Amino acid sequence: MIELIKKKRDGHALSEEEIRTIIRGFVDESIPDYQIASWLMAVFFRGMDDVETAILTDAIMRSGDLIDLNDIPGIKVDKHSTGGVGDKTTLVLGPLVAAAGVYVPKMSGRGLGHTGGTLDKLESIPGFKTDMTTEAFIERVKAHHLAICSQNEKLVPADKKLYALRDVTATVDNISLIASSVMSKKLACGADAILIDLKVGDGAFVKTVEDADKLATIMINTAKQMNKKLIAVISGMEEPLGYNIGNALEVREAIETLQGHGPADLTELCLSLGSYMLMMAGKATSHEAGKETLREVIAQGQAFAKFVEMVQSQGGDTSYITNPEKLPTSSFSHVYEAKTSGYISHLSAMDIGLASVKLGAGRETKDSVLDLGAGILLKKKMGDWVEAGAPLAVLYANDTSLFAKAAHYLDEAFVISTTKPEPYPLIYKAIQ
Amino acid sequence: MIELIKKKRDGHALSEEEIRTIIRGFVDESIPDYQIASWLMAVFFRGMDDVETAILTDAIMRSGDLIDLNDIPGIKVDKHSTGGVGDKTTLVLGPLVAAAGVYVPKMSGRGLGHTGGTLDKLESIPGFKTDMTTEAFIERVKAHHLAICSQNEKLVPADKKLYALRDVTATVDNISLIASSVMSKKLACGADAILIDLKVGDGAFVKTVEDADKLATIMINTAKQMNKKLIAVISGMEEPLGYNIGNALEVREAIETLQGHGPADLTELCLSLGSYMLMMAGKATSHEAGKETLREVIAQGQAFAKFVEMVQSQGGDTSYITNPEKLPTSSFSHVYEAKTSGYISHLSAMDIGLASVKLGAGRETKDSVLDLGAGILLKKKMGDWVEAGAPLAVLYANDTSLFAKAAHYLDEAFVISTTKPEPYPLIYKAIQ
Repeated sequence: MIELIKKKRDGHALSEEEIRTIIRGFVDESIPDYQIASWLMAVFFRGMDDVETAILTDAIMRSGDLIDLNDIPGIKVDKHSTGGVGDKTTLVLGPLVAAAGVYVPKMSGRGLGHTGGTLDKLESIPGFKTDMTTEAFIERVKAHHLAICSQNEKLVPADKKLYALRDVTATVDNISLIASSVMSKKLACGADAILIDLKVGDGAFVKTVEDADKLATIMINTAKQMNKKLIAVISGMEEPLGYNIGNALEVREAIETLQGHGPADLTELCLSLGSYMLMMAGKATSHEAGKETLREVIAQGQAFAKFVEMVQSQGGDTSYITNPEKLPTSSFSHVYEAKTSGYISHLSAMDIGLASVKLGAGRETKDSVLDLGAGILLKKKMGDWVEAGAPLAVLYANDTSLFAKAAHYLDEAFVISTTKPEPYPLIYKAIQ
Repeated sequence: MIELIKKKRDGHALSEEEIRTIIRGFVDESIPDYQIASWLMAVFFRGMDDVETAILTDAIMRSGDLIDLNDIPGIKVDKHSTGGVGDKTTLVLGPLVAAAGVYVPKMSGRGLGHTGGTLDKLESIPGFKTDMTTEAFIERVKAHHLAICSQNEKLVPADKKLYALRDVTATVDNISLIASSVMSKKLACGADAILIDLKVGDGAFVKTVEDADKLATIMINTAKQMNKKLIAVISGMEEPLGYNIGNALEVREAIETLQGHGPADLTELCLSLGSYMLMMAGKATSHEAGKETLREVIAQGQAFAKFVEMVQSQGGDTSYITNPEKLPTSSFSHVYEAKTSGYISHLSAMDIGLASVKLGAGRETKDSVLDLGAGILLKKKMGDWVEAGAPLAVLYANDTSLFAKAAHYLDEAFVISTTKPEPYPLIYKAIQ
């Protein structure tokens, strides 16, 4: 192992056997963590080329069980968002694309930090189960074109272990390590094609389009090495997506969007991302054609019907979907008002995300208990005019003392000025 | 700790409190090895400035006991060699400089790899003890101006622990880490001034004068930050120093040198290094004057007498010193002959060192048992003419089967050609 650390430290590419040796030794603990840690820091400084990144992805992917979806015909398309605030796209995209005939096997995570998690959001629907056996998962995908479940503990153990070590050794921020982590998980779940929603901006962990470009490029090159399809869409996460932030609140907004009357930004993003998924699955010949198909799927009620079908299949009480006012709401609400009149010239996704965590919608530690009804309903977004004293947002929590804590972040989140700001792009580019 | 790793990773200097926190946490094990390992790799890539290196040196130095030599008057001068083959300078320099009135408190190490260790060499003198209490060490230095002992286990625990981790994480080769390791040990032993013999060439771990220059500069700057004197002499280690390689063999050559009839290279190096030690101790006004003093000390028998005095003080049988033919010799010898006639155009110190290890003079692992009488007596050195069939070296071992193993290295060590080579410098430069 010392020689392998030296080799990477001195800027050389590692061979397939060398990378597999490292990952195998890390998982079976024959290589101690301190050697993996110094190797990770050497990777941080020296990087990995496309071939190395593909081998690392494959080695991590094969460190545990693999889900075999070969019984299901056609191209299975998975989707991954690098994380944002108010990002309920999976709740919309899954049913939307499945309703258009694409198989979407989706394993999701829980929220940590300022971003929420798809599983937490779905669990605000009473009865909804995200834990299931691999067999049940495959059966559901086969029957409904869609299932959303929590990640099986037997998949990619190397990724969990490696991420935990990277987290405490300041070696998270390397694009090859990020790419291999994301892709190994998706590929272990049996996906043939992956749509990456690469968020950029205030509320995302990637802050510049330039960095997002680099990450997208290495993911695409890695996918090519592995003979998988991948499209990366770089989208804006300067302000929150949509108006609702918080678990049940986001389910409501997803339902509105699936029914055709969601907010413009969320709708447009879902149509665009969904169309790329259709294209990879061979269900659309152009991006515009794919979007048109999805608009039809929404207009004819199939998208929402697919959502209801999935909720039913996963044990959820569909009456909460057809009557979303039944979904949990916190006991108390508070209207947060504008201090001055003017245009909203900035609305920080990060601060809104942190405020919603304070209200109980997110986790401050891994063991935090969520208030599924808590969160923020924005009344204004960037570029909107607001009068002093008019509501900027409504806050929901089960403890009124939390409002002041959240307001502290909201004071930072909203910037009001006399000139109308230039809008940020919703979608910067798609790379394939 | 994650923040401190990030800070160094991103190229920032760490503060005094931050560096002390890291070393403290490493020693008391509140910071796990994997975090220290990734930090070390970040230091490898980003380096440390002079202030950081001085703080690191001080923090390592203070991780254990400190030897207080304040009872002994004047400037105590220690000496450190970065390691070479046939490097018996400490055996000569210690008595030589002590005989000139300088206090030399010297803690030494054992051999590992292709280089020998001073303690092993001295232990070829029957009865000689290198283990002693700190009090006995101080008393001996006070009484005889000189004591050479093994390193106290209670000194610089951080250095031992850090070196062990660097060794297995490919983070040895960083000049700040090397400098702080060497200097923390010397300063914990109570030295006010340090003479560094920085070996460069085939048999040294530093291969180029340029690298040696960098290491010397950081050591000098670190010493300045700590208000200590330090002179670094960059000396050649292309071929072995002197003619004898092996423990008892080297003691013999040291005795010859202390008696005024040692080999030219060893004698000149000891006079030069010794004079710098005198200058730092305020016992010489110029380098030439110091060398002249030392020549006198040898000529008048005081240098050899001081060696005998030290051996007696440390329990050794001085009859082995006054009659060095009594020193251990292996049971078998073998003459290694030249295959062709010509000039010795190269003589690899590394290969000679490895050959002597094979003969039993050095350790292949930490647990190897030494044959104190084994080794190599060179008959020719670089630039000498040799006839085909004439002896190039005499090998000593307790097992005749070892000669063939050693000869394999000797075949590599000697290069014979028709043109006389340019000699390598014995001393490249002194930096202060």
